[in-house]
Amino acid sequence: MYYLTRTYTFSAGHRLHSEALSEEENRRVFGKCNNPTGHGHNYTLEVTVRGQQDERTGTIGDVFKLDGIVEQHVLADYDHRFLNTDVPEFARLVPTSEHMVQAIWRRLAPHLERPQLYRVRLWETARSAFEYYGEEN
Amino acid sequence: MYYLTRTYTFSAGHRLHSEALSEEENRRVFGKCNNPTGHGHNYTLEVTVRGQQDERTGTIGDVFKLDGIVEQHVLADYDHRFLNTDVPEFARLVPTSEHMVQAIWRRLAPHLERPQLYRVRLWETARSAFEYYGEEN
Amino acid sequence: MYYLTRTYTFSAGHRLHSEALSEEENRRVFGKCNNPTGHGHNYTLEVTVRGQQDERTGTIGDVFKLDGIVEQHVLADYDHRFLNTDVPEFARLVPTSEHMVQAIWRRLAPHLERPQLYRVRLWETARSAFEYYGEEN
Amino acid sequence: MYYLTRTYTFSAGHRLHSEALSEEENRRVFGKCNNPTGHGHNYTLEVTVRGQQDERTGTIGDVFKLDGIVEQHVLADYDHRFLNTDVPEFARLVPTSEHMVQAIWRRLAPHLERPQLYRVRLWETARSAFEYYGEEN
Amino acid sequence: MYYLTRTYTFSAGHRLHSEALSEEENRRVFGKCNNPTGHGHNYTLEVTVRGQQDERTGTIGDVFKLDGIVEQHVLADYDHRFLNTDVPEFARLVPTSEHMVQAIWRRLAPHLERPQLYRVRLWETARSAFEYYGEEN
Amino acid sequence: MYYLTRTYTFSAGHRLHSEALSEEENRRVFGKCNNPTGHGHNYTLEVTVRGQQDERTGTIGDVFKLDGIVEQHVLADYDHRFLNTDVPEFARLVPTSEHMVQAIWRRLAPHLERPQLYRVRLWETARSAFEYYGEEN
Repeated sequence: MYYLTRTYTFSAGHRLHSEALSEEENRRVFGKCNNPTGHGHNYTLEVTVRGQQDERTGTIGDVFKLDGIVEQHVLADYDHRFLNTDVPEFARLVPTSEHMVQAIWRRLAPHLERPQLYRVRLWETARSAFEYYGEEN
Repeated sequence: MYYLTRTYTFSAGHRLHSEALSEEENRRVFGKCNNPTGHGHNYTLEVTVRGQQDERTGTIGDVFKLDGIVEQHVLADYDHRFLNTDVPEFARLVPTSEHMVQAIWRRLAPHLERPQLYRVRLWETARSAFEYYGEEN
Repeated sequence: MYYLTRTYTFSAGHRLHSEALSEEENRRVFGKCNNPTGHGHNYTLEVTVRGQQDERTGTIGDVFKLDGIVEQHVLADYDHRFLNTDVPEFARLVPTSEHMVQAIWRRLAPHLERPQLYRVRLWETARSAFEYYGEEN
Repeated sequence: MYYLTRTYTFSAGHRLHSEALSEEENRRVFGKCNNPTGHGHNYTLEVTVRGQQDERTGTIGDVFKLDGIVEQHVLADYDHRFLNTDVPEFARLVPTSEHMVQAIWRRLAPHLERPQLYRVRLWETARSAFEYYGEEN
Repeated sequence: MYYLTRTYTFSAGHRLHSEALSEEENRRVFGKCNNPTGHGHNYTLEVTVRGQQDERTGTIGDVFKLDGIVEQHVLADYDHRFLNTDVPEFARLVPTSEHMVQAIWRRLAPHLERPQLYRVRLWETARSAFEYYGEEN
Repeated sequence: MYYLTRTYTFSAGHRLHSEALSEEENRRVFGKCNNPTGHGHNYTLEVTVRGQQDERTGTIGDVFKLDGIVEQHVLADYDHRFLNTDVPEFARLVPTSEHMVQAIWRRLAPHLERPQLYRVRLWETARSAFEYYGEEN
């Protein structure tokens, strides 16, 4: 089994604010990330797939095809957007990095079966990375 | 003469949109950066000062004091904000990185005379850096 | 299950020298790291926790709280110190990176149960990283 | 159990071209990597070993010895070479990163039993990493 | 005056070998870089331009246009090529990084007058950078 | 004129403490860097030389020779040492980064005339860089 990790970047705005919390709770829980007009990040997205080698090509899959899938299903919708208002899944979900790795997993998994999606890792800043391995893990 | 460069990070949202341009011109000039709801970045700010060594301490100045000046005059106002609406100078100036390095210079220069402010460099992303050396340079 | 990795830095001095070895064995085993007056490093510490999402906040926990725990239980004691003499656990243990990740785990684990401490990774230099997953792993 | 990851770099040329594919298939599958005269990369190699701590030294093994093994069995043959023609295993295998991590594993594993080789990771560029954990994994 | 630095990457093969030197001198001067079949690098190219701000856009120029110029005049010819045989200027010039920054300057300067090309910096590896400021500097 | 920057790393311990200051002043000026037993850093040293190209080799000089000079005159004395006690120039000078770049310049300049030493830059941490261009600049 071989693992390939490929890295992408996108820039997006967001505001951390939960409808399930009071104004005061939102400020306490999310601190400066609750700023009413939002803020933003340069996100680094690492997508890991795994699979067996194809005997004829010596690869587990086509990197350019992987790039196309991530471009079409994630970057085209997320890059240079304000996540809360411009991306459908965050109409009801707070765009925390946890919700983001789950949403990105759901967008990519149906298109990554061979090689298979193994991990989604998202760096919100150079200091904070979030990982998700799918519903069963 | 010695030069000290100190690095800071902040996360902010912005929208590139000029009142001096038509809607169509704005879209053409700024592309995806003109997205109406904005987007954001993890900015890396490099502040360079220069000066002579103090004979008794062997330094050109106090790094902790420099940190305090940058925190008070830049980061406290820029970090986790939406620049267009939350920072006064961008009420009339498009928050491009060029305008940002100029604005940051003007905020810092009066407080950095000894050692003296030499350069403001701002990385908008890991691929794009902007530099400014003051009005006379 | 979600994993959050958060990165910290500290600078410390140390000397690799074991009481269980002769002077000559110490020089052979530890080489230049056995220099009698010691040397030092900028350590990068990566702390990984894991947990379920809180439905109301969309997060697995409070990053600022995590920062406080690492600051109080590790950085306050390790940063800008000479490990062999200034940090209690290294009075008897050689401050190798292996002993350091174990010691940091023991300092953090009692305070990180929900989300739960999963991994301690320590970069001694940009070329060498050490990982520890707790006593049972 | 402790894990140590040590990082190495080497620069090499290669051409992706499979004898099992037609000229046209090679161009379609490998794209610009099929350029007849080849191209090259600065590879970053991460070797991870794991083991128990030695009570007397507080380490899982000798980093300088690990460096010597990687130098002798990998870098001496791979660095500043054209992989297709200069390295025996790529006389018949396409020098994809998948084949490279497998080949590097086979070169290192017999010499890394205590501490034991756990993972070979190879960065072909700053955006693409490949991992291999041995035949049984 | 504002300075914008934009970063690009490309992967290429090369061989350092001068027709003006004997075989033995070539081996002595270029060492392992003289390997007959060549080797390669992931090059990082930093292009710096400078200029005045446009009052209406708040920028010194269009980053996307700069990207197009570098893509068309440098990357299209250099990326995934073997420099000695595939790039015209290196038919007679040894593809050292010094010759490369000069060649890249000559390719870009005619197309970068406003903002004006100021510096070409090329990282051959993460340890070695070469800079060129044009014929008059 | 071409500029070549080459990067080196070394790990060293130091204590910031000036004989010209009282105990209390030392604590106030140097803060945690005044810790009596010292601390340490992974220093990154960037040495920049400049010169004309040699027509026959296409380079401004021999990188391996440069490496030898830096190894012999700086790294051999600084790496894995406690600067205050192990390096002669810091018997009387506080080992601040300002004093270090000056000392490194003085060690290297006599051996780097063609190509000529242009700049010494020292990163004490990933956040702080110090530069020196010689006595006349």
